[in-house]
Amino acid sequence: MNALWSDMVKRTEPYTPGEHVNGEEWIKLNTNENPYPPSPRVFEALQQELTSNLRKYPESDPKELRNTLAELHQVSADQVFIGNGSDEVLAFSFMAFFSPGKPIVYPAVTYSFYPTYAALFNISYDTIPLQEDFTLDEKALYKSEGGVIFPNPNAPTGIALPLAGVERIVSENQGRIVIVDEAYVDFCSETAIPLLERFDNLLIIRTMSKSRSLAGLRIGYAIGSTEMIEALNRIKNSFNSYTIDRLALAAGVASVNDKDYFGDTIQAIIQTREQAKKIFESLGFTVLPSAANFLFVHHPEIPAKQLHKSLKYKQILVRHFSKPETEEWLRVTIGSDDEMKQFFEKLFELVRMWTDKSSAY
Amino acid sequence: MNALWSDMVKRTEPYTPGEHVNGEEWIKLNTNENPYPPSPRVFEALQQELTSNLRKYPESDPKELRNTLAELHQVSADQVFIGNGSDEVLAFSFMAFFSPGKPIVYPAVTYSFYPTYAALFNISYDTIPLQEDFTLDEKALYKSEGGVIFPNPNAPTGIALPLAGVERIVSENQGRIVIVDEAYVDFCSETAIPLLERFDNLLIIRTMSKSRSLAGLRIGYAIGSTEMIEALNRIKNSFNSYTIDRLALAAGVASVNDKDYFGDTIQAIIQTREQAKKIFESLGFTVLPSAANFLFVHHPEIPAKQLHKSLKYKQILVRHFSKPETEEWLRVTIGSDDEMKQFFEKLFELVRMWTDKSSAY
Repeated sequence: MNALWSDMVKRTEPYTPGEHVNGEEWIKLNTNENPYPPSPRVFEALQQELTSNLRKYPESDPKELRNTLAELHQVSADQVFIGNGSDEVLAFSFMAFFSPGKPIVYPAVTYSFYPTYAALFNISYDTIPLQEDFTLDEKALYKSEGGVIFPNPNAPTGIALPLAGVERIVSENQGRIVIVDEAYVDFCSETAIPLLERFDNLLIIRTMSKSRSLAGLRIGYAIGSTEMIEALNRIKNSFNSYTIDRLALAAGVASVNDKDYFGDTIQAIIQTREQAKKIFESLGFTVLPSAANFLFVHHPEIPAKQLHKSLKYKQILVRHFSKPETEEWLRVTIGSDDEMKQFFEKLFELVRMWTDKSSAY
Repeated sequence: MNALWSDMVKRTEPYTPGEHVNGEEWIKLNTNENPYPPSPRVFEALQQELTSNLRKYPESDPKELRNTLAELHQVSADQVFIGNGSDEVLAFSFMAFFSPGKPIVYPAVTYSFYPTYAALFNISYDTIPLQEDFTLDEKALYKSEGGVIFPNPNAPTGIALPLAGVERIVSENQGRIVIVDEAYVDFCSETAIPLLERFDNLLIIRTMSKSRSLAGLRIGYAIGSTEMIEALNRIKNSFNSYTIDRLALAAGVASVNDKDYFGDTIQAIIQTREQAKKIFESLGFTVLPSAANFLFVHHPEIPAKQLHKSLKYKQILVRHFSKPETEEWLRVTIGSDDEMKQFFEKLFELVRMWTDKSSAY
């Protein structure tokens, strides 16, 4: 700690993102990236943007992308806010809707960036343990002093809460904001967007990093009432006039406009996920029912931490979270069919070695 | 105001960026963009990045760009922090080094985003009037409770404070941070980087938007002691793991590596600036001595606000700041020689019309 640091720095608890590796020899199933490239239309759009206009600032208010997303989601353009990845949108949302002294509520097992934001902005919080089957304890989210935030489907479990449950949480929290983080919703769960017609305390956050294969370009967005979006704009325009660069803006519009490619890649990932679930189960793993592009898995005999390490030795990255509630589980991103085939070959060896070794002692 | 807004939103005073226009027919001299395109090497590097890797997150810690900048500035790589435009670096710096209850000090005429950050993060401040010749009142910056921030050269005046003056400010503020915002330093003033060897309370902020023609790609950075950089990393990693996208990172490295192109375009802009200064003076304008890529000009007879409006009518944008200290001045970005020729043709007409009209009354 340094005497020149602000109190804000001193209280930070920085987030640790999934490991980054270079090299084609690695199979990277640790950060929920999409195994398929962005739409060919994205590359066409990027090519067209490689002009001397890069010397000019992008739009401060990205109207075309807002309009495109509004049309996609059947809301008005002033119900859409765009940020530099959904993490920035989440950070701005913590700033805009949560206040020191008013504790917020979120699940005890969830996106591990929430406590980091809470520490940074001095927001106190209560965490709600998951139920025994790893589903959300919906009723425990009915009461909050300062608001509620949860991912749906939840991470790292992948389990989705049905829309009726989301509606009850929003309805019970009138006067406090409920943020539903729909980072993984495109992989087959119900969106809360239809609830916006009836509730003004709901904010929905999305990302183009997962379902649209644009993690490398950083685009996230929020959908909510015009007053909620105005609050986010006030924060953003007090922070950075130009958060999304020209190339990302062009890529975002092109991606949304290629509905066929989007549908096809989503279907492919869901199919691979369901196959992968069966293979995990055949190897003795418990697998939670996932509505996301990853599986949360547990083996009754092999310690997750050990398995994580052994896989890494074989140049396969998966994600291990060392919190007590999750330390016996691994989160495995759904890769391409070929990546999953290689992954399961290595996993099969490891499971056999481990179970043989166990029986030998 | 909405009951769901946080106190933070309620106290915001959002910044208004310079107007954005589309269309080649406009001459845009209002946001200090570079009239020359980015280096050809930038376009080569971008082409090479248009691969399926866009589906993957960028590096959370952009090592290659940090190393490249460290080499350029002859500092160590852990003295460099990179952000999504220098506005984001400034926002993180307000969070990392300034604290509520400890007033900071900055010039009364300066980058108008500073009071916006101060409002957002609840930092109180004292402003120091410029001297009559629009130079900084250096001695008034010697004392501060919470730190000092100023651009050098200053904006929108363009006037640079010599290095000895910066050194005295840093030296007199031991124990408080001094942030020198060097957004325009490449256009021929002295950098404070050599002072880093002797002072650990100095942070220097730079941008690639102006001198490197990369406004459209959003890259800013800070240089300081390793402990100052650690503080910025703690804030960034509590806010957004991936602030700079893959394409921007590649463009930044390529730009820094093309030293000849950089030198040539800078020289061209300085030459155009000095010519423009003479023409303004021949038209009766007062022009402050600029070390930046813009001129701050005042006409004794023509109200600046009126001139701004008349130029806009002729599809030329310049910047007018309506604060009392600056409302009689215009800030004119240095464009290409051709843009400046067109600009001066229109300006010549307007000055003639106005001065004829004046004499007629």
